[in-house]
Amino acid sequence: MTHNLNILAEKAEGGVTERRFDLSVNGENVPGILWTPENAIGTRPLVAFGHGGSQNKTAPNIVAMAKDLVLDLGFAAVAIDGPGHGERVSPEQAKALRENNDARRAAVRKIDSTTEWMTVLDNVQELDDVGAGPVGYWGVSMGTRLGVPFVAADKRVKAAVFGLFGLFPEGTVVKEGFEKAARSIEIPLIFVFQWNDELMKREDGLKLYDAFSSKEKAMHINPGGHVDIPASERATWKPFFRHHLGGFSSDSTG
Amino acid sequence: MTHNLNILAEKAEGGVTERRFDLSVNGENVPGILWTPENAIGTRPLVAFGHGGSQNKTAPNIVAMAKDLVLDLGFAAVAIDGPGHGERVSPEQAKALRENNDARRAAVRKIDSTTEWMTVLDNVQELDDVGAGPVGYWGVSMGTRLGVPFVAADKRVKAAVFGLFGLFPEGTVVKEGFEKAARSIEIPLIFVFQWNDELMKREDGLKLYDAFSSKEKAMHINPGGHVDIPASERATWKPFFRHHLGGFSSDSTG
Repeated sequence: MTHNLNILAEKAEGGVTERRFDLSVNGENVPGILWTPENAIGTRPLVAFGHGGSQNKTAPNIVAMAKDLVLDLGFAAVAIDGPGHGERVSPEQAKALRENNDARRAAVRKIDSTTEWMTVLDNVQELDDVGAGPVGYWGVSMGTRLGVPFVAADKRVKAAVFGLFGLFPEGTVVKEGFEKAARSIEIPLIFVFQWNDELMKREDGLKLYDAFSSKEKAMHINPGGHVDIPASERATWKPFFRHHLGGFSSDSTG
Repeated sequence: MTHNLNILAEKAEGGVTERRFDLSVNGENVPGILWTPENAIGTRPLVAFGHGGSQNKTAPNIVAMAKDLVLDLGFAAVAIDGPGHGERVSPEQAKALRENNDARRAAVRKIDSTTEWMTVLDNVQELDDVGAGPVGYWGVSMGTRLGVPFVAADKRVKAAVFGLFGLFPEGTVVKEGFEKAARSIEIPLIFVFQWNDELMKREDGLKLYDAFSSKEKAMHINPGGHVDIPASERATWKPFFRHHLGGFSSDSTG
């Protein structure tokens, strides 16, 4: 077990404690944010959020979901900047990648977040207001590309929301091993897909849904483009995590 | 407006009033059941339930959903026997149809429930514990085959759950006009589909989902066969109807 979480800043606001941290993983600095209920101690479910391409750990949808899980369910939530994103690149590099989809995808294709995510869980679950409870993963688009290998590898993850992604020929859009990882996943899933996604083909999305080995897996298709997931869909994720990550005692000391 | 609802029996149990009725539509007797909150007066949302092939108005999943909508949301709910089903055939005929899928489908292909459903709404909404509130429709499999033309024709229906069905060449599995009806529907929908449905092809299901013109339409795919819709999926329907059929005043007199 590593103990190298470097808390950079901590603030509490409206019942939510937010801690910004750096974590060194294989010589690479991984910046993240952890949200927990203010003044709470004890083991609780933790949901890990993987952002989409060109976004970062402070994406408004992630922050909103994270705070809602903390306030409404008493969960903990954590987000990190993916490789080549957020504080892991200079503002100039980030801008160049935002403006060049091909370059960004070529960069993302090579990288892997599995070890980073596992080390984040190791460290965050050491904290006395998080503990070693059940873990959920939420990540669509690049968050699925990087999340599928992580979720396949880490047995602490008990439920996941994936989406806006597909199954492609090995070594093209994704790293080798992606399909094998998808096929090895057996935990409950929601797989979200946009029917008019300008970046993903319907067939590829259906193939990825088909690949998961989970007995409980729901594919939720909605109209609209890549970034148009409707509110009615977003509303299904919290009950899903609550159901699968279950209750916990917020009174117990960690 | 017709006034020919013939109440055959009424009983109240556990907060739910159940009325069995007969209704004459074009010389055909249509037997149904209406569920309302016990001792309630006033206009409220109404959900109409269309059962599946070989089933009838007392299918356990329909009765359970209907009572839950009544008890938990204060809605009214109504189910009728489809043509060639339930009390509309003799026990011998029903048994023969259950045992002969081809004959049952050939019979269902010819029939239409649109006028029956519209007349049921006319009459049920005259009652002082139902009133002319917003209407929802729930029906999968044969309930979609007969429900799509009805929902397309009746503007009182504001939200629908369809599923376990597909788009087929005209005049084969469905009556002519089915595809046109589907394409004319613009209300919020959930379209449920089973990924390993032994009766429906995935492509046909995706085609039917694609055909609906609704801006809000979610296709929920789950693993398993035609009758294996999981509890996690069933749990999405009540919030959907509550959201779209909205609040109402149970205190107002009808």
